[in-house]
Amino acid sequence: MIKINENFLNLQQNYLFSTIHKKVDAYKAQNPNADIINLGIGDVTRPIPKIIVESVKKAMDEMGEKATFKGYGPECGYEFLRQKIAENDYKNLNIDKDEIFISDGAKCDTGNIVDIFSLSAKVAIADPVYPVYLDSNVICGRTGQYNNNTGRYEKIIYINLTEENKFEPSPSQLEEIPDLIYLCSPNNPTGVGMKKETLKLWVDYAITNKSIILFDAAYEAFIEEDNIPHSIYEIDGADKVAIEFKSYSKTAGFTGLRCAYTVIPKRIEIQASNGEIIRLNEIWKRRSSTKFNGVSYIIQRGAEAIYSEEGKKQVKENILYYKQNAKIIKNKLEEKGIIAFGGINSPYIWLKIPENLTSWEYFDKLLTKYNVVGTPGVGFGRNGEGYLRLTAFGDREKTIEAIDRIVKN
Amino acid sequence: MIKINENFLNLQQNYLFSTIHKKVDAYKAQNPNADIINLGIGDVTRPIPKIIVESVKKAMDEMGEKATFKGYGPECGYEFLRQKIAENDYKNLNIDKDEIFISDGAKCDTGNIVDIFSLSAKVAIADPVYPVYLDSNVICGRTGQYNNNTGRYEKIIYINLTEENKFEPSPSQLEEIPDLIYLCSPNNPTGVGMKKETLKLWVDYAITNKSIILFDAAYEAFIEEDNIPHSIYEIDGADKVAIEFKSYSKTAGFTGLRCAYTVIPKRIEIQASNGEIIRLNEIWKRRSSTKFNGVSYIIQRGAEAIYSEEGKKQVKENILYYKQNAKIIKNKLEEKGIIAFGGINSPYIWLKIPENLTSWEYFDKLLTKYNVVGTPGVGFGRNGEGYLRLTAFGDREKTIEAIDRIVKN
Repeated sequence: MIKINENFLNLQQNYLFSTIHKKVDAYKAQNPNADIINLGIGDVTRPIPKIIVESVKKAMDEMGEKATFKGYGPECGYEFLRQKIAENDYKNLNIDKDEIFISDGAKCDTGNIVDIFSLSAKVAIADPVYPVYLDSNVICGRTGQYNNNTGRYEKIIYINLTEENKFEPSPSQLEEIPDLIYLCSPNNPTGVGMKKETLKLWVDYAITNKSIILFDAAYEAFIEEDNIPHSIYEIDGADKVAIEFKSYSKTAGFTGLRCAYTVIPKRIEIQASNGEIIRLNEIWKRRSSTKFNGVSYIIQRGAEAIYSEEGKKQVKENILYYKQNAKIIKNKLEEKGIIAFGGINSPYIWLKIPENLTSWEYFDKLLTKYNVVGTPGVGFGRNGEGYLRLTAFGDREKTIEAIDRIVKN
Repeated sequence: MIKINENFLNLQQNYLFSTIHKKVDAYKAQNPNADIINLGIGDVTRPIPKIIVESVKKAMDEMGEKATFKGYGPECGYEFLRQKIAENDYKNLNIDKDEIFISDGAKCDTGNIVDIFSLSAKVAIADPVYPVYLDSNVICGRTGQYNNNTGRYEKIIYINLTEENKFEPSPSQLEEIPDLIYLCSPNNPTGVGMKKETLKLWVDYAITNKSIILFDAAYEAFIEEDNIPHSIYEIDGADKVAIEFKSYSKTAGFTGLRCAYTVIPKRIEIQASNGEIIRLNEIWKRRSSTKFNGVSYIIQRGAEAIYSEEGKKQVKENILYYKQNAKIIKNKLEEKGIIAFGGINSPYIWLKIPENLTSWEYFDKLLTKYNVVGTPGVGFGRNGEGYLRLTAFGDREKTIEAIDRIVKN
């Protein structure tokens, strides 16, 4: 008799953004004329730069001609794209094209990466943070039961991000030694980037304790301060202990096109029980060739165009547009005396709720009273209670309008 | 101290097609002028039909304009495509759009589906068959050790496909009751389609024993005989016990574009340990929303065009082209007295090696003597030893040339 994977029943809530989606839809159904402005889900709104559009269309024309048609591509991505990434994103960082794996999204990669480690691995996850890290570990059975009293899973080592530590994780907080450490910088949802010296503490810790760092750098393009690393491989020794996830979603507006990549240096070696030295790079390659068939050729050609001179220019313009939104949101909130983190090296603003309301109560108030959608902080972890995440990915005028509605009331 | 998932070390070989690729590359390097014809990997060669090319390009233009830009789409696929699939591929079969999940490949889905079932599930897999079913279960730990003497994994229930049973699996062969049953029809690699009465035996068996059938119908479009079902849902009761996988790869030439879908009817209900009745449809939706972010919008628009009148016509032409190739291969081999299965309801021809050679020896002979690449049957399972798979996806002239080289010698 078949049984399901009952770890799914151990998940505590629907996926955060599905829940928000349902609440907004229900409100819309009852208030069809409401002018709702969504600063909730971290989805971009600027169109894809022209040079990328033309590259994808050109590649699609190739697909329509016998001489240039492309069938199955390499599971780990075309060399033309991996080479460009190595040369541009990892210039002087000693990352080779064969250490780069193209995928259809950092969400998939950060989710699927759980497959390559022992089920008994102890996992450290920040609170608050992007829910996929925790949920994918719940599904594969690496957590214990959810404890309703503490609001936390057994067996997970939580790294508390709070106003007191300025939402920056430090290994000194760890109560036991984790095997896997998820770090997200600039952090989703707090918008706080990790400083170079802090990241170095983590890399040194991982080297000493033979842990692996899973470093999510999906928002790297928004960094503007000098002391916030763009890649974990800026830290000496990280290429022996860290996997890095990057995405074109927020950088170049690829949320609807789907392309990202993961870096697994060949220097990450792990000893198996039989004494054999195993390269994580090889294991991920094996997983990819078994359970994945590569990213659409035409999308990879689009991603390649990001690295052209014109592509870089157009992409940068979009990022600056969003960054300006972030500054506006942050400034308007702070002028009103509302405390807001992030928004400098990140498209996310982490608003401290200025009233005695929970995250979901404030979410409901914003939705029903001001017709503005944010993301309840508690959806990212217990420490997110009392906060709300706002995103800078909206249209300029609508973003201003949304914040004005909040602060004028 | 981190450990890898050591189940990876239990995999017996590199992914079959990677190994072939390496062998061919090595031969090419030593014989740069060799005119190699590849009838090995099941990859299409006909260009994408024009109407699909135009649909994708139009969608890409939308992505370049603010008013029509699309960000994150629904994780389970756009309704416009799911609706078309329900109306066309499942006409009169009572499958609803909400039971259809769009993905980037049947390989991903048949691989990732392992996530939603209990790790203790007993798995039945045909031998020979597409390697992903077995390998994905090895990786997640559902098999025991590989036994070098038997050439098989402990804990897996093998369904022997042989010349004696005409490569058609039957539940009467089962030595114990499986929880999960992988069936592939028309089968990859044998090219044999399951007859309606045989498939009914399996559905009835699954209902009686509370098993789930994972039905891979990736080659359904090649079926021409009346008594071979195009969908498992043609069998009464299958909507309570079967998941079906379909792909646009071989149908519409999408191997390089990446689009497929999986059907999970809401009538599949499984009782959890706590007594709760769980719909598999909901569990897969939860997995998708946690670890996947949907297929590229522009690719889904391309897939939608397959269902237009012109799309159907153009796609059919390509399939007929490949089917004609299959007939030519099969006829030429049989004229020479070589036994060949498949090739009628399938693009695959399962050649019985006419000499006292193993699959890999015959592979090497074909590669080095005739410069023709096939796929060694043993790569699909122990029962595949002594066979070679040829595919009909090549260019007409080159296909004829390849078979002539084989039969004239």
